[in-house]
Amino acid sequence: MASPELDALTQALARLPGLGPRSARRAVLHLLKRRETALAPLRMALEAVEQRLVTCHQCGNIETQDPCSICTDPRRDPAILCVVEDVPDLWALDGKRLFAGRFHVLGGRLSALDGIGPEDLAIEALVARVQNGPIKEVVLAMNATMEGQSTMHYLADRLAPLGLIISQLAHGLPVGGELDYMDEGTLALALRARRPVT
Amino acid sequence: MASPELDALTQALARLPGLGPRSARRAVLHLLKRRETALAPLRMALEAVEQRLVTCHQCGNIETQDPCSICTDPRRDPAILCVVEDVPDLWALDGKRLFAGRFHVLGGRLSALDGIGPEDLAIEALVARVQNGPIKEVVLAMNATMEGQSTMHYLADRLAPLGLIISQLAHGLPVGGELDYMDEGTLALALRARRPVT
Repeated sequence: MASPELDALTQALARLPGLGPRSARRAVLHLLKRRETALAPLRMALEAVEQRLVTCHQCGNIETQDPCSICTDPRRDPAILCVVEDVPDLWALDGKRLFAGRFHVLGGRLSALDGIGPEDLAIEALVARVQNGPIKEVVLAMNATMEGQSTMHYLADRLAPLGLIISQLAHGLPVGGELDYMDEGTLALALRARRPVT
Repeated sequence: MASPELDALTQALARLPGLGPRSARRAVLHLLKRRETALAPLRMALEAVEQRLVTCHQCGNIETQDPCSICTDPRRDPAILCVVEDVPDLWALDGKRLFAGRFHVLGGRLSALDGIGPEDLAIEALVARVQNGPIKEVVLAMNATMEGQSTMHYLADRLAPLGLIISQLAHGLPVGGELDYMDEGTLALALRARRPVT
C-alpha cells in the first residue's frame, strides 16, 4: 500500500473476525471507491457507537442509557432473572419479546482452553444481585455447548445455597427438526428428556 | 440488536466485500468488547483516510498529495507510462520498485457483463496524456484475465495511431510454477510464447 493511512485502515479491518489481510485490502479499495456511500457512513456509525453506547452497570447490556431500558422498565417482572453468556444472547431472547423478566450478562463462559475462570466473568455481581434483590427465579440460559453447559452447572452450584428456583432452557429437537438430520447428541438428549404425552 | 446505533454499524460493515450480515454482527461484538483497542483505532483510521487521502488528478493514484509523489518524482522516467486497471495494481508494481516510469490508473476494465464501457474508464485522459506528454512507450499492465486482455487490446488499438511503442506484460509460467499444477491456458500460452534458449 502506498500510504500509512491505508496501511493503518487495512490493519484495523484485518483484525475483525471474518476478515484477513487480503480481504481487508479488498474492503479498503471498496471503501476508497465509495467515499460518500460506504466510507463516511461506516466512520459515522463507529462514531455513534463510540459516543452513545454504554454498558449497563447492572446487567451488562449495551445501550444508550445506564441503567439500560430493560433494567428500568417497570412492566418487567423483577422476580425473574435470565442469565446469558453474552450481549447477543440477550438480544436474541429479548428481540422477540420472549422473556418478561430482567437479564444478567456474564461476559463469556468458563473455558479452561481459553483460560477463562469464574473471576473473569460477572459471577460475583450476579450473586450479589440475587442476594440483594427481590429475585425468586434464575433462568440459566447458556448455549447448548460443552462450555456453556459447564458454566451453567457451575452457576447452579454457586446459586444453590441462596434457596431460589434455578432453571435451565429445555434441550431437545428444535422446531421443524427432522430426526434424520439431527446429530446423535440431540437425539440422545431428546430421548433421555422424553415426557408423557398429555 | 437493541439499538439503532448498532444496527447502523452492522449494516455498514455488512456491505463490505467479504462480510455478510452474520459476520458483521460478530465484528460488531468484537468491536464493542474492544472499544479502546479495536473500535477507536478503526474509526480513526477511517477518519484519516477520509481527511487526508486524495486521488491524483493526473494518474489516478490515491495518496496524501495531488499530484501524487510518483507524478512529481523527478527521478522517474517521464518517457515510459504503465497503464493499470486499478490502484492496487499500481501498488503491487510500485511497492516492489519494479518500475521506474509513471503510472496511469484506468479505474477498472471493460466488461460487457458489468456494463462498463470505454467512457467509464480514464481512457480519454490516457490518450490526452500520451498526446501532450514526452511519452515514448506505454506498458499495458492489465490483469491476465479475459476482461483484462480485451481491455488491453482495446487500448492498443486506441493508442496505435499515436506512433509510440506499445508493450504488454509477458505471460507464461510464474516463478516457482510447476507444470503439473498449471492450468491448461497457462501451459498453452507458455508453449506458444516459447523462446530460443540463449
